[in-house]
Amino acid sequence: MNNPFFKNYGPFKIDDVLKHLNLSNTDSYKTDLIHDVKDLNSAKKNELTFFHSKKYSLIASETKASYCLTLKSLKDYLPKECKKIFVESVLLSISQITSKFYPDSINDNFDETVKNINDLKFKDKIQHGHNVLIGINVKIGKNCSIGHNTIIEKNVSIGSNCSIGSNTIIRNTIIEDGVSILDGCVIGKKGFGFLPNNKINLKYPHIGIVIIGENSEIGCGSTIDRGSMSNTVIGKNTFFDNQVHIAHNNKIGDNCIIAGQVGMAGSSSLGNNVMIGGQAGISGHLKIGNNVQIGGGSGVIKDIPDNTKVMGYPAKNLRQFLKDNK
Amino acid sequence: MNNPFFKNYGPFKIDDVLKHLNLSNTDSYKTDLIHDVKDLNSAKKNELTFFHSKKYSLIASETKASYCLTLKSLKDYLPKECKKIFVESVLLSISQITSKFYPDSINDNFDETVKNINDLKFKDKIQHGHNVLIGINVKIGKNCSIGHNTIIEKNVSIGSNCSIGSNTIIRNTIIEDGVSILDGCVIGKKGFGFLPNNKINLKYPHIGIVIIGENSEIGCGSTIDRGSMSNTVIGKNTFFDNQVHIAHNNKIGDNCIIAGQVGMAGSSSLGNNVMIGGQAGISGHLKIGNNVQIGGGSGVIKDIPDNTKVMGYPAKNLRQFLKDNK
Amino acid sequence: MNNPFFKNYGPFKIDDVLKHLNLSNTDSYKTDLIHDVKDLNSAKKNELTFFHSKKYSLIASETKASYCLTLKSLKDYLPKECKKIFVESVLLSISQITSKFYPDSINDNFDETVKNINDLKFKDKIQHGHNVLIGINVKIGKNCSIGHNTIIEKNVSIGSNCSIGSNTIIRNTIIEDGVSILDGCVIGKKGFGFLPNNKINLKYPHIGIVIIGENSEIGCGSTIDRGSMSNTVIGKNTFFDNQVHIAHNNKIGDNCIIAGQVGMAGSSSLGNNVMIGGQAGISGHLKIGNNVQIGGGSGVIKDIPDNTKVMGYPAKNLRQFLKDNK
Repeated sequence: MNNPFFKNYGPFKIDDVLKHLNLSNTDSYKTDLIHDVKDLNSAKKNELTFFHSKKYSLIASETKASYCLTLKSLKDYLPKECKKIFVESVLLSISQITSKFYPDSINDNFDETVKNINDLKFKDKIQHGHNVLIGINVKIGKNCSIGHNTIIEKNVSIGSNCSIGSNTIIRNTIIEDGVSILDGCVIGKKGFGFLPNNKINLKYPHIGIVIIGENSEIGCGSTIDRGSMSNTVIGKNTFFDNQVHIAHNNKIGDNCIIAGQVGMAGSSSLGNNVMIGGQAGISGHLKIGNNVQIGGGSGVIKDIPDNTKVMGYPAKNLRQFLKDNK
Repeated sequence: MNNPFFKNYGPFKIDDVLKHLNLSNTDSYKTDLIHDVKDLNSAKKNELTFFHSKKYSLIASETKASYCLTLKSLKDYLPKECKKIFVESVLLSISQITSKFYPDSINDNFDETVKNINDLKFKDKIQHGHNVLIGINVKIGKNCSIGHNTIIEKNVSIGSNCSIGSNTIIRNTIIEDGVSILDGCVIGKKGFGFLPNNKINLKYPHIGIVIIGENSEIGCGSTIDRGSMSNTVIGKNTFFDNQVHIAHNNKIGDNCIIAGQVGMAGSSSLGNNVMIGGQAGISGHLKIGNNVQIGGGSGVIKDIPDNTKVMGYPAKNLRQFLKDNK
Repeated sequence: MNNPFFKNYGPFKIDDVLKHLNLSNTDSYKTDLIHDVKDLNSAKKNELTFFHSKKYSLIASETKASYCLTLKSLKDYLPKECKKIFVESVLLSISQITSKFYPDSINDNFDETVKNINDLKFKDKIQHGHNVLIGINVKIGKNCSIGHNTIIEKNVSIGSNCSIGSNTIIRNTIIEDGVSILDGCVIGKKGFGFLPNNKINLKYPHIGIVIIGENSEIGCGSTIDRGSMSNTVIGKNTFFDNQVHIAHNNKIGDNCIIAGQVGMAGSSSLGNNVMIGGQAGISGHLKIGNNVQIGGGSGVIKDIPDNTKVMGYPAKNLRQFLKDNK
């Protein structure tokens, strides 16, 4: 899928890409054009990807990317056809290249393009409250309602039969049919991603979006950040209670039930039919299977297979937790 | 108490009620009128209640309701005078009947009745900020202040000497004298209640309200959901710090102190003089006594008797916790 | 440093101060003037401080204050030159005296002085959204942007190159250059400080402010309360994820990374380069050293020395935690 919202300023010649990284073109790649930057999984021919940790060696071995920013020590995990570009810091370099392709994705200032809904064609199509602001590149389906003081910034697609509450802010997000987003949410803001540096942290671009599936509901005061390289995805018919925080790149399945104040760090995935009790936390880069139940207050720091009930901090099998705490 | 805010479209003939549930009237209840639907505790003569779990058998045995939706397996817990209506899913059926009596309680879209305070009689009575919106059926006492961008939706009663902050949203709530509600709160929204269904969850109606007692204070960014069948109640002189989440049907006593980021799942009760440390969580359907102290970060999953100090996850006696963690 | 924002109505004669506390002037302090009230650490000659717990005896022994409200049982910890004023409740008395010096610090109602930015000189200086409100005594540097519906209440100084999001509220705060504050935050509100009383809690004045250092970032939906007697301080280049809560009087160092939903109770300090995982909580009055790493979900209830990694509830050495939970 091409990026639906952020303008790709490419393609760029590989020579320009290398210059941007202050690298000399020792392999004489001059004529190639790089069309896009993507993660290992989704990158294709004529696109550039990055590979910075052994943890991803399996995915790396199957990448279709023509070029990959990586470390010398990781080169043997990549396919032969994939041309390796060795850099000192993979994340710093991919951040610089992504910024070159998508300069509009770095700045997360408020959207200057918004206008009051009363000055837009949406005025008569949508049941809307007072002081609703809507930016450019926004689509809204039939039979939707948008509450007071809510700001739909640029790059938002809302399906039919959706209800958006008051005091909510949405940007860079696709909302499917029948979704309810309650009051005071912030959806589609850049994630908490940067390269720490003791003088001044380098914020990296977030070119992913948020996708919220059909008939889902997001409780009051929740925050869902958009992805960095991939998207943040909420499945269909998945319900969040209030004050939930979903960081960048998480993928949540269908029919999940997530209680109040739950937090998910970045780049984890939940299967379908997952239930999470209040205040539980999920660490980053984990895979939680289908039909998993996570007790309230749990701290999940390991993958969880399908059909498992866990509880505790760190989370363990529910029976074991109950036995240990009799 | 009759429901102060949601219009009761009843009474309905029992025959109509049964038809609404696709049940045949095998017991020939034709002439009876059902005046209201209530929980086991508060239902009276000519009213309908529901009883779906053995956990409530004690309360069930004392219900004054004329009719009760229940399971065949539970029928012997109910008084003889109470007429039993057997259904397959008690919660689904009571949800359907409640929607029949209170159709206005299902939809939680933004309130279309609000007007800018400058167009209302409140303009000169209340010290108010910019862009304050107020709905129908709102009462506000003397000497109150309401901050910028705050939305008092329909069905709100505010006493005297109250201070409401900015960017706050309130609906279906009774606020007694001397209460402070700080910035960015959402009070009186429907609770996180629905019947899970793998195609599309069935949201059930919330006909309860929120009541906040005299001289209490609610910190910034807090959410307090209204009740489903009963009310969510905060006692007098009870103080919440920021980012607290109180789910539907909770009852909190007087003089409680609840620190930041505490969460309470639904239908629990706290006595008077309860202190809860930051980030602690209280599971649903629990009874926490008077003068209880709950340490920060605790996860409470069992009832706690009066005058007890607990800490831990799961919470245990404080002395035991300190001993176990020396 | 003199209080930059709250007007000091002093000096007051010591005789007036004693009368305000209903104390007789048994030591004949009549002629002295009290110029300010401060904490043990920062109080100087001709200023009054307070000392209410043995925990602070070391700091008490070095105070430069001319007068100190204290208990008879604590008097020997204080320097001889410091004149002791014995009271029954130190916190109640200092609260009363602080209210006398700083009557404007008690009331945290919305700021009535704000005007729409379009009616102010800031209009052309700042890139700003719709419906931005700005109070008196506000300074804003070059090249700043302020999002929609944001309220900069009185007593705020914003440096250059700052980005303030939408739906955010700021008061009594100094923001240095290059700071980003994202959407939906509340910064500079009074802390959760009061003297519990079973009839009506006594809220105590908060005369401290919030200071946010250069190039820091505060995530969406975060709350940072201003200090009571001292300030709440966030260092330089320190980044917060979403839904973080920082209570009054906390001091956070430079280059810290604080993940989502972390909470800090009051009056604790973090050194530089501290990393805190999601949902961790820090109790009040603790000292966390430099280069400390605190795992997600941890509950910190003891001081942590420099260069330490901890995890758990209560938090312990990370290795021990991992070993205990194998």
